[in-house]
Amino acid sequence: MKIHPTAIVSPDAKLGENVTIGAFSIINDNVEIGHGTIIESHCEIGVKNHLCDSSPLIIGEHSHIRSHSIFYSSSKFGAQLVTGHRVTVREKVQAGTNLQIGTLSDIQGHCSIGDYVRFHSNVHIGQKSVIANYVWIFPYVVLTNDPHPPSDIHIGVTVKDFAVIATMSVILPGTIIEQGVLVGAHSSLKGTTIPDAVYAGNPAKFIFETKRIKLSDDTEESAYPWREHFHRGYPQEVIDEWLSK
Amino acid sequence: MKIHPTAIVSPDAKLGENVTIGAFSIINDNVEIGHGTIIESHCEIGVKNHLCDSSPLIIGEHSHIRSHSIFYSSSKFGAQLVTGHRVTVREKVQAGTNLQIGTLSDIQGHCSIGDYVRFHSNVHIGQKSVIANYVWIFPYVVLTNDPHPPSDIHIGVTVKDFAVIATMSVILPGTIIEQGVLVGAHSSLKGTTIPDAVYAGNPAKFIFETKRIKLSDDTEESAYPWREHFHRGYPQEVIDEWLSK
Amino acid sequence: MKIHPTAIVSPDAKLGENVTIGAFSIINDNVEIGHGTIIESHCEIGVKNHLCDSSPLIIGEHSHIRSHSIFYSSSKFGAQLVTGHRVTVREKVQAGTNLQIGTLSDIQGHCSIGDYVRFHSNVHIGQKSVIANYVWIFPYVVLTNDPHPPSDIHIGVTVKDFAVIATMSVILPGTIIEQGVLVGAHSSLKGTTIPDAVYAGNPAKFIFETKRIKLSDDTEESAYPWREHFHRGYPQEVIDEWLSK
Repeated sequence: MKIHPTAIVSPDAKLGENVTIGAFSIINDNVEIGHGTIIESHCEIGVKNHLCDSSPLIIGEHSHIRSHSIFYSSSKFGAQLVTGHRVTVREKVQAGTNLQIGTLSDIQGHCSIGDYVRFHSNVHIGQKSVIANYVWIFPYVVLTNDPHPPSDIHIGVTVKDFAVIATMSVILPGTIIEQGVLVGAHSSLKGTTIPDAVYAGNPAKFIFETKRIKLSDDTEESAYPWREHFHRGYPQEVIDEWLSK
Repeated sequence: MKIHPTAIVSPDAKLGENVTIGAFSIINDNVEIGHGTIIESHCEIGVKNHLCDSSPLIIGEHSHIRSHSIFYSSSKFGAQLVTGHRVTVREKVQAGTNLQIGTLSDIQGHCSIGDYVRFHSNVHIGQKSVIANYVWIFPYVVLTNDPHPPSDIHIGVTVKDFAVIATMSVILPGTIIEQGVLVGAHSSLKGTTIPDAVYAGNPAKFIFETKRIKLSDDTEESAYPWREHFHRGYPQEVIDEWLSK
Repeated sequence: MKIHPTAIVSPDAKLGENVTIGAFSIINDNVEIGHGTIIESHCEIGVKNHLCDSSPLIIGEHSHIRSHSIFYSSSKFGAQLVTGHRVTVREKVQAGTNLQIGTLSDIQGHCSIGDYVRFHSNVHIGQKSVIANYVWIFPYVVLTNDPHPPSDIHIGVTVKDFAVIATMSVILPGTIIEQGVLVGAHSSLKGTTIPDAVYAGNPAKFIFETKRIKLSDDTEESAYPWREHFHRGYPQEVIDEWLSK
């Protein structure tokens, strides 16, 4: 255990073996951190508010939370969570294994996230979002939830396996992004979609099937489904499972 | 008074009764904090720059400033200011009571804000903005001010009572958003508007009157004016005043 | 030298004369900070990751890094770097003199930046970007690099001297923004451009030459090239050089 002498760690926090806590970080009670996890400096882990219940914040083993990040209580993250700097993650998130959350991203809580999901920088995930596995969300994307703001009605966005949402798109309340869909940069998408199709524009419309996008090289191969050529960061058993289908 | 032992509080700061200051926070001189106010951890309150004058930063009573937030000097906030995490608020803001500023929002200073205004996450308020009462501004909205950037000319945006600006809209310099206007998500709005109308698109155009938007339930009631059905967080006397008009 | 007693400074960091380090800041080894530079509170300077090489982080003299900022190792900045708060700057940036980086901006590293460049708040600079001199990039602009995300192909954006990118625009991979181009707010720009022209819309198109935009005053003078009327923050020898051409 490497706890920096300036860190403030509640005696009631449950830390696994070989956990590292950086300088000027605060670990509250009601937190369970898996073994081998690194929490960098200036973090605040296990914040409580009136929307938390008594369940703890659980962070899986071999995770890495970079500096200046804030996690609320009453959420659960699988093993190998990796974050950038200054992420904010509110209460009641249920997330699978190997989630990556980029710098400045803001997960508003009350949402579910599958395995091997990647949020790039400055992504905003509204409450009631349901995100499946192997999803990619790029910088400055917002998943909204209020059909006529301000209101107390929250209709979350659903994002299915292998979907990709490119930079600075807004996904409107209740939208369902099917498997393998690509939402083009700077789009506003609302409604339903068909799998493995490109949607782009404001408002976003069906453009063509994703397989019509070619790789930027001399081959004439399709760039999508991306899982057929892009494997960085996924374990071999996951890739084998993808390619066996 | 609950001042964490790691906090650095100037002896010249004026703190009301029952003020809480979190770990690793810095409270400079020339700051006046009303009684019952909570300043969480890792904050920096009362930053000075060459644009500040000798007037202090005044934060009203029963306010709550969440962790990692930064406030400059020479601004005044009424009672019950509530912020998310890591907000940045520059000098020379004049704000009324019960302002809410979401996580990551960046108030550039030199602006005026009325009572019961809500900024959601990651809102950017340019200098010379004039925002009235009961306004809602949603994530990633930017109020601009420079008609031909870069220049030294700043023509602020005006937002009147009950107006709503949805996610990721840009409001161009000098735009006047009239009472009850709804700006749709991902819009670029410029110029003048008429009250209680929807503007959307890039460039944003008049769509229809807000009252044509129905609630997402089985009633056929209008969702706007929102004050007729959405009351969370407002005191009864405010609601009574709205409904008596 | 004014190092706050709570700051954590590696004995191997090389600090010039008269350097100031604020409270709760961390200065790692492998950092060289020029004389007269101010690092404010809650910063983390010289972060390492697997993409850094053995070269240090070099910050030029008379720089000013505001609070809550994070700089990685293996980058070099010329004199008079100025940042807002909570900027994140990754490894392998080569930047000239007098760079300004606004609050919340996120420089992803592996890029080159010329002299006297200004990034306003919340700008996102993707890897492989090449930015020349006297460029202005306004809030919530994203320079992207991946032509078919996710992939391992990064084709950066090129921005030439005196170009201006207005608020909330997305610049798509491989785009070349020529000298003096103005990209209008909320645009998506892709491809090549001609110098001193306005591009706007989604997708952005050629609108007209920048000189057709007039100053917002009673003169009938053009607002562009901006260097003919806007000189704040540039030394006289730079202005003389501009105007002599």
